[in-house]
Amino acid sequence: MTAVDSRARDPVDDATLALLLEVAGTPKPGNVDRRRDLDDLRFESFLGGAVGARDGLELAASDEGSVGDAFERGVAGMADRAGTNTQFGCLLLLVPLLRATVVGSPAGDVSPSGDLDPDAVDRVTRETTVGDAVAFYRAFERVDVAVADPPADAAELDVRHGSDAAPALRDRELTLRDVMAVSAAPDDPDRVPDRNAQEWVEGFPRTFRAAEWIRADEGPLTDRAARAFLGLLAAEPDTLVAASHDPETAREASARAAALLGGADDGGSTGPLDPSDVDADAVHGADLDAAEALATAFVDEGINPGTTADLTCAALYVALRRGAEVAR
Amino acid sequence: MTAVDSRARDPVDDATLALLLEVAGTPKPGNVDRRRDLDDLRFESFLGGAVGARDGLELAASDEGSVGDAFERGVAGMADRAGTNTQFGCLLLLVPLLRATVVGSPAGDVSPSGDLDPDAVDRVTRETTVGDAVAFYRAFERVDVAVADPPADAAELDVRHGSDAAPALRDRELTLRDVMAVSAAPDDPDRVPDRNAQEWVEGFPRTFRAAEWIRADEGPLTDRAARAFLGLLAAEPDTLVAASHDPETAREASARAAALLGGADDGGSTGPLDPSDVDADAVHGADLDAAEALATAFVDEGINPGTTADLTCAALYVALRRGAEVAR
Repeated sequence: MTAVDSRARDPVDDATLALLLEVAGTPKPGNVDRRRDLDDLRFESFLGGAVGARDGLELAASDEGSVGDAFERGVAGMADRAGTNTQFGCLLLLVPLLRATVVGSPAGDVSPSGDLDPDAVDRVTRETTVGDAVAFYRAFERVDVAVADPPADAAELDVRHGSDAAPALRDRELTLRDVMAVSAAPDDPDRVPDRNAQEWVEGFPRTFRAAEWIRADEGPLTDRAARAFLGLLAAEPDTLVAASHDPETAREASARAAALLGGADDGGSTGPLDPSDVDADAVHGADLDAAEALATAFVDEGINPGTTADLTCAALYVALRRGAEVAR
Repeated sequence: MTAVDSRARDPVDDATLALLLEVAGTPKPGNVDRRRDLDDLRFESFLGGAVGARDGLELAASDEGSVGDAFERGVAGMADRAGTNTQFGCLLLLVPLLRATVVGSPAGDVSPSGDLDPDAVDRVTRETTVGDAVAFYRAFERVDVAVADPPADAAELDVRHGSDAAPALRDRELTLRDVMAVSAAPDDPDRVPDRNAQEWVEGFPRTFRAAEWIRADEGPLTDRAARAFLGLLAAEPDTLVAASHDPETAREASARAAALLGGADDGGSTGPLDPSDVDADAVHGADLDAAEALATAFVDEGINPGTTADLTCAALYVALRRGAEVAR
């Protein structure tokens, strides 16, 4: 068999594989993974959702349709197959990454020299329109998504309004990137920002950093994904945990993840590591056996770091584009 | 959400989901499943293989390319991603089923009235050519596939010859269906026939029977797939077990599976049930807890009923076309 240039591979296939490897990665404490279902969410729903999202992913990797339309179609297909929200946040990150992968190339093709980098995806998010924002809001009508309340001065922009928010979006001329900027910088400094929204406005720094953790790691990709998940969670409190519990619970969850990293101080830590302390060595030294116990504890406590799983999925996609391969 | 007409769904998505649900279905004694890797075969390789097979599945569901070309492309894409043989036999069954799904429809579309039935898939296999047979042989050059020796008078048709067998195939004017007919009816009556080849020449009776077991069953599809696997294995000795051990081991493995079915006599059984004794009630009553122990035992003994897994995958595809849905 000849060596494969990973850039020649279909980016839609890579995105689908990232969705599948994300949910298979184990242990990812608090989330559905290869070894765990949640009471109201099953592994097989994720398989259905990943397959159902295909049309939206293909739209994202073409020059037809906007980023917002591609996202809405992906969510609709996911929800149709899965019957529930499985990977809404993953799709929110994958869609601009896919578009950035094919930017500057003929429709649907990948430029052989078209490296996927933070600048490319930043250009994609900067080019989003008010129409993309409206499509994003429509996507919330397809499935139930756990979200926090919007800032007081943005009540009419609550995503739970769905398409009813369209007049307000048009009135304020808010693009999808503008909408993300609001969620990325909450007015209350104690509040945990929306990490996915931060990725959108900051050039996907978490995604690209964790992609390098995965690419430079060894062993099966499902293990590497689990270690990257722990690194991401250790670095910053999870948005979904904060929204469904409170910021303090989210900070504690990150501290518990940090204690499992290589070289981490596992006694007396009261908060997450400084993000700059979570490096590749710490991530590659993560103790997945100890993470099994944390997975059991998080499920028992109802702690579900779902946003960290989204970031892990996006990182898997970038790692696949950069040559990571499933274990042989 | 409105009800979905499953026939309006993309058959390629259904085939991909069948590949994923097959490997996720657990316990499937002796095979890789959601809870088990084998020493030389990992779950994540199957995820890669299912994604990589996409191009071949799309070719099968179009009116371009022959059935043989679609199969070869599917195997090549699977092997490229997985780096090994994950679901060769599944693809051998899915490709004609996909072609039958779209027969009589415009390219790539599904006729709203186009029910997938044994007659449709039988027509597809009858229309295969010598070129399809040559492509089938070429596919064996892509991956290592465990096969039994051919009959003595067909040594030059050993699939392990790959494309070197092309002159013999052309000389004897053997279509792909003809090749399957040889494997389906071994000259030695003690030998276990190739079940996949039998499906090809008999109109897929095992596939359609097990599809109805799955469709009429309850609970998650991964559980239904596991029960259907036990039913198929109980009904007939597995080809791969016979090839890698011997026919007697294959018969014993089937008897051990039969003992786990509902209403089965679990004492003193020395051979597989008569196929006609394995009905939907017996399959739906299969004891999956007891099957966990059998899964451990089969792995320890190196018993891998891979052909039965292929049939389970094909049955999942037909069940999805007929409206089966992932658990909600």
